[in-house]
Amino acid sequence: MTPKVRLHLDQPLAPGQLLAPDRDQANYLFAVMRLAPGDRILAFNGRDGEWVAEVTQASKRGGALIVVEQTRPVQLPPDLWLLFAPIKKARTDFIVEKATEMGAARILPVQTDFTNSERLRQDRLQAHALEAAEQCGGTYVPEVADLQPLSKLLASWDPSRRILWCDEARVGSVHSLKGLERGPWAILIGPEGGFSPAEQAKLAALPFVTPVSLGPRILRADTAAVAALSLWQAELGDWTGA
Amino acid sequence: MTPKVRLHLDQPLAPGQLLAPDRDQANYLFAVMRLAPGDRILAFNGRDGEWVAEVTQASKRGGALIVVEQTRPVQLPPDLWLLFAPIKKARTDFIVEKATEMGAARILPVQTDFTNSERLRQDRLQAHALEAAEQCGGTYVPEVADLQPLSKLLASWDPSRRILWCDEARVGSVHSLKGLERGPWAILIGPEGGFSPAEQAKLAALPFVTPVSLGPRILRADTAAVAALSLWQAELGDWTGA
Repeated sequence: MTPKVRLHLDQPLAPGQLLAPDRDQANYLFAVMRLAPGDRILAFNGRDGEWVAEVTQASKRGGALIVVEQTRPVQLPPDLWLLFAPIKKARTDFIVEKATEMGAARILPVQTDFTNSERLRQDRLQAHALEAAEQCGGTYVPEVADLQPLSKLLASWDPSRRILWCDEARVGSVHSLKGLERGPWAILIGPEGGFSPAEQAKLAALPFVTPVSLGPRILRADTAAVAALSLWQAELGDWTGA
Repeated sequence: MTPKVRLHLDQPLAPGQLLAPDRDQANYLFAVMRLAPGDRILAFNGRDGEWVAEVTQASKRGGALIVVEQTRPVQLPPDLWLLFAPIKKARTDFIVEKATEMGAARILPVQTDFTNSERLRQDRLQAHALEAAEQCGGTYVPEVADLQPLSKLLASWDPSRRILWCDEARVGSVHSLKGLERGPWAILIGPEGGFSPAEQAKLAALPFVTPVSLGPRILRADTAAVAALSLWQAELGDWTGA
């Protein structure tokens, strides 16, 4: 039977390896889920794939597990980044969760001319990504970067990574993803209100930027993120079976 | 200047038509937004497109507006239904909101063998769809149906409407939407835990059902809904420019 509990443990995973859950994890495993010696969980660390681990000692303050066997090798997502302008807290959390499920390799919050947020709890967003990976069966946790100005990021951008620019101003026009080349990409989603005229002019002039429309209705930023990630994964990513 | 307030008013919209907002709407327009005679809003009713209406009388208990001119004709979405098994309240609300933004024409909550929810507030979900249409600039509000058993719905299904079945059990396999025919479709999203073996066997045997995989990671139902709607809209719907 497949263990019901699936946990991210930032420790090496190999046969016979002992695992020491931290206090929060021990509380979850042994107080909330009431696991006892002999019970099994699934563990992953983002690098070594997914493993079965067996409880050897149950204690709300610590306890121990031993790694038994690998159930899956690590599956890295395609080389796709998501750049987005943070919005309301709940929707920002949601974008990080969805980007993890959808297989983004890196998540980069950016400040744009129309971004409201000046500060962002990177550690909290990283924890959200980790939790989403636990839930979606992923063996990889995307890195959430610190908030940085879009202009600064673009100034030092490696042009070999192309940017798929979801441009709200293009609502109604259409640009298909068909025919785009595989390789490193980043998806750029704007804030509510879109990009400023100066940002639009700058993005339009960059040779590595491809604008795309997401249909005739205005999408919220969180919807646009999932929609753009879907189209990219189906056309260029790991949904293609290639 | 484009009016900032955009409101669904279930009244006929035509030049010179007088509009009487209900009490909640009057409170929003005249108390919250503090609109005064001469101020303008955008109004739509889901049938007659989008219109500019001007306040003629401001009162928290009622007030009146007069329809000035049309800004956009009604834009109906493609003939696409979304069938989904209701999940936790917040995520169910979210699915209705997203399906509206993504241009589903009808939203049908279904009971499956693994659905938790036995009751659903249809009126509350319909209000969510309406609010989402106000936000996303849509001129159409999808109908949210009452909760009904999937088995009953399938028993009387019109086979000319094909079903795109997002099958969690197929995670890892791939089925592209390329080559599918245009026409009436419905997208079917399962609950957490997917479909029961009996449901899977039944769906697999129906000639109008096409299974599809949404990549190698397990998606939450709300993510899967947006992903499937994106792929369908880009391949067969109103994102294609056709």
